[in-house]
Amino acid sequence: MFQETLREIVDKVEGGVAGLIMDSEGIAVDSYAREGAPFDITTIGIEFGVVLGSIKRAAESLEAGTAQEVAINTDKMITVIRPLGDTYFLAVALRPDGNLGKGRFLMRTAAPKLIAELG
Amino acid sequence: MFQETLREIVDKVEGGVAGLIMDSEGIAVDSYAREGAPFDITTIGIEFGVVLGSIKRAAESLEAGTAQEVAINTDKMITVIRPLGDTYFLAVALRPDGNLGKGRFLMRTAAPKLIAELG
Repeated sequence: MFQETLREIVDKVEGGVAGLIMDSEGIAVDSYAREGAPFDITTIGIEFGVVLGSIKRAAESLEAGTAQEVAINTDKMITVIRPLGDTYFLAVALRPDGNLGKGRFLMRTAAPKLIAELG
Repeated sequence: MFQETLREIVDKVEGGVAGLIMDSEGIAVDSYAREGAPFDITTIGIEFGVVLGSIKRAAESLEAGTAQEVAINTDKMITVIRPLGDTYFLAVALRPDGNLGKGRFLMRTAAPKLIAELG
């Protein structure tokens, strides 16, 4: 069920590499990677999941409201992370030249359905 | 000198609120805020500067290369952070409906000049 949604996001985005749903303790719920993906999406999720936790705390301390999305660009990849409620998050990794705008859009539109299914 | 560059970025972006150059210890080099800015950009810089540090370490551990840019969307604002070499970073805050793509573009094109001036 999640697999299918993850595949739809990753395969529809130019430069999409992999997608993951993980809980805040670093346990993967489901993941999908295109063939030949140069990264392990679970490792990425664990590392950036910790970062997401610190972003949530910073946003709280700034009274900036709930964190909706984080996009991290490095030399070798783009990672977009979107909290799904309080417990889970969706992470999608793209190549550095991937279509970040489309990735963000597809993640935003998929989120309500994923949250309902995870609830 | 920095003031002028910050103003150019913030004023040219639809929804631009404030900009800041800060070092990795949380000391502001220069900042600029539009009149009536609802946030204190220095406080934002200090909080998200810490986050940037943890992202740099995560990227290193993932062998994902250097962190180029981080964009954080919350209910009340968008913050884009761009490291300027190892020591400094540029942060720009936008309203949630601000033009993130243009903000990223202006920050990317301003970065080499800022790095040269900070060096």
